[in-house]
Amino acid sequence: MKIALDAMGGDFAPAKPVLGAIEALKEISDLEIILVGKKELIEEELKKNSYTSDRIEIKDTCDIIEMDEDPVQGVRSKPKASMNVMLDLVKSGEADASVSGGNTGALITASQLKLRRIKGVLRPAIATVFPAKNKQIVFMDVGANADCKPEFINQFSLMGSVYAKELLDIENPKVGLLNIGTEEGKGNEITRESFELLKKHNYINFYGNIESRDMMNGEVDVVVTDGFTGNMVLKASEGVAKFIFDFLKEEIGQSFRGKIGALLLKPIFKKMKKRMDSSEYGGAIFLGLNGISIKAHGNSDENGFKNAIKVANKFAKDNFIEQVKVAIDKCKEEKNEF
Amino acid sequence: MKIALDAMGGDFAPAKPVLGAIEALKEISDLEIILVGKKELIEEELKKNSYTSDRIEIKDTCDIIEMDEDPVQGVRSKPKASMNVMLDLVKSGEADASVSGGNTGALITASQLKLRRIKGVLRPAIATVFPAKNKQIVFMDVGANADCKPEFINQFSLMGSVYAKELLDIENPKVGLLNIGTEEGKGNEITRESFELLKKHNYINFYGNIESRDMMNGEVDVVVTDGFTGNMVLKASEGVAKFIFDFLKEEIGQSFRGKIGALLLKPIFKKMKKRMDSSEYGGAIFLGLNGISIKAHGNSDENGFKNAIKVANKFAKDNFIEQVKVAIDKCKEEKNEF
Repeated sequence: MKIALDAMGGDFAPAKPVLGAIEALKEISDLEIILVGKKELIEEELKKNSYTSDRIEIKDTCDIIEMDEDPVQGVRSKPKASMNVMLDLVKSGEADASVSGGNTGALITASQLKLRRIKGVLRPAIATVFPAKNKQIVFMDVGANADCKPEFINQFSLMGSVYAKELLDIENPKVGLLNIGTEEGKGNEITRESFELLKKHNYINFYGNIESRDMMNGEVDVVVTDGFTGNMVLKASEGVAKFIFDFLKEEIGQSFRGKIGALLLKPIFKKMKKRMDSSEYGGAIFLGLNGISIKAHGNSDENGFKNAIKVANKFAKDNFIEQVKVAIDKCKEEKNEF
Repeated sequence: MKIALDAMGGDFAPAKPVLGAIEALKEISDLEIILVGKKELIEEELKKNSYTSDRIEIKDTCDIIEMDEDPVQGVRSKPKASMNVMLDLVKSGEADASVSGGNTGALITASQLKLRRIKGVLRPAIATVFPAKNKQIVFMDVGANADCKPEFINQFSLMGSVYAKELLDIENPKVGLLNIGTEEGKGNEITRESFELLKKHNYINFYGNIESRDMMNGEVDVVVTDGFTGNMVLKASEGVAKFIFDFLKEEIGQSFRGKIGALLLKPIFKKMKKRMDSSEYGGAIFLGLNGISIKAHGNSDENGFKNAIKVANKFAKDNFIEQVKVAIDKCKEEKNEF
């Protein structure tokens, strides 16, 4: 498979994306990568790592959409931005999938614009992996659709199930509806109406409501919600984890006893951080588009980019987009669901 | 002040509520407490702790609303439930404020039914304290109103400000609107409309949007949102903290090195847990009602109940309900805000 990588996207670009590409190429023998970005900067990074390979290609382009740039404006005003060019490669079929650690809003906009939604898809959505007890779960929509209709959430459940099956190898994933209580009838209007649709959905394994407190207990494999709530919960979780780690770090630094204790627990803390880190699983994906667009976390290191590239490669190989299309079509034809 | 305490509410009732009452009475010399619940059980607890005082009174009542009971049905079918009787005491003026660690939904229902909303209040809401860097902040609505109009959120900002001033001693609290991005125009429909109202609000100190990830950085003093989102974020935060602590505990138990490290870090872990625990600040309050109804966490220990009683006592002493009324009236008369 040939993966287009936005070499200019992310907080540590181009160093970390390029390094991630090198690592991925070392691990997968039939992988090819197109590095999209400023040629001289990319070549410099490759040189730094003394890496040459005929499986690496550079697509030289001058512009970059900055991390804090207005997404829509950035995408529209900079057709030669690395992110846009990367997606053009997927669109034209020159690449089989893409990975970017750049501006999230811009990547949403550009992906929708270039790859277009699959026929029958009401709204593309962002799915990510979320840590749970002894497993990982799929969580969506985490930010593409701030205002959702129940039908959108109903369809997220189908796309999320296909995704969980492919990414996490779960045969018949259990789908939970994020809610403020577990009983039927709980929640706000949109969630109550979504529940009604999900209950009748023939192509998913509906578990029922699940509270945000219990998402991580491992009861379900996929959690669906609207993009506003999903983004809130995702970022709150990040915030709390950061708060706890920052607090521990500060306290530990204040005493000799603390420092010794922390030294002994270092492997455990490291494991914990890794456990909380979605980049271990390749970041987030835009579901519902005619192409694979993977979003690596902005602060990904080489490992984060490597994992995202590996996921992109696997998804391309397994013809993931076709799987989504089949599921949507099946649902549409037989049940007139959407 | 005289506080009515639901002696039967909470996971460890009546033991922990009674113990919390004893602790509070020891700390505050002019405090009086009415313990509401099954007399013989309460007397047994007092005896166990060899405690007698003329500042403690028992209001004998037979029924209990169970933790997992349907809230509305429980409140309506059991007029002699400890929670209902407790609120009757506030309503009649026999008690100056109340504290319960019982069924949250039932306490919302009963509080609204018995205490009624303050004139001009659109919707009563639940406010809680949330940990932030070097401080605590007020967070609301965390669950009373799953569906909110922008006007409700606008009014929460006023009630939350009065609450922050009283509870946390902040003169001109900065109010943030919980959102998925910081720029104006971000968010779902209701949040965008709320922003417009908050921007024009003359009686609050509006900070702008704040992301759930940044709530804990200490930039603002009050965070407002609808009850669905608030509940989601609150419970997700609890879930993540629990996940992290459970993970650490399990990992630590698996090696000698881990056990030694944890022993050394024990005081820090303890401090951390305390920091994350809202019961340190008396739990949650229902704002907008004609009376003080405080919700202690269901799993509160004596310390949690003691703190909730102390908050109830302070609020009663400072005539908090009158403060809310004045704020609502001022806003209403001068600006026709609500």
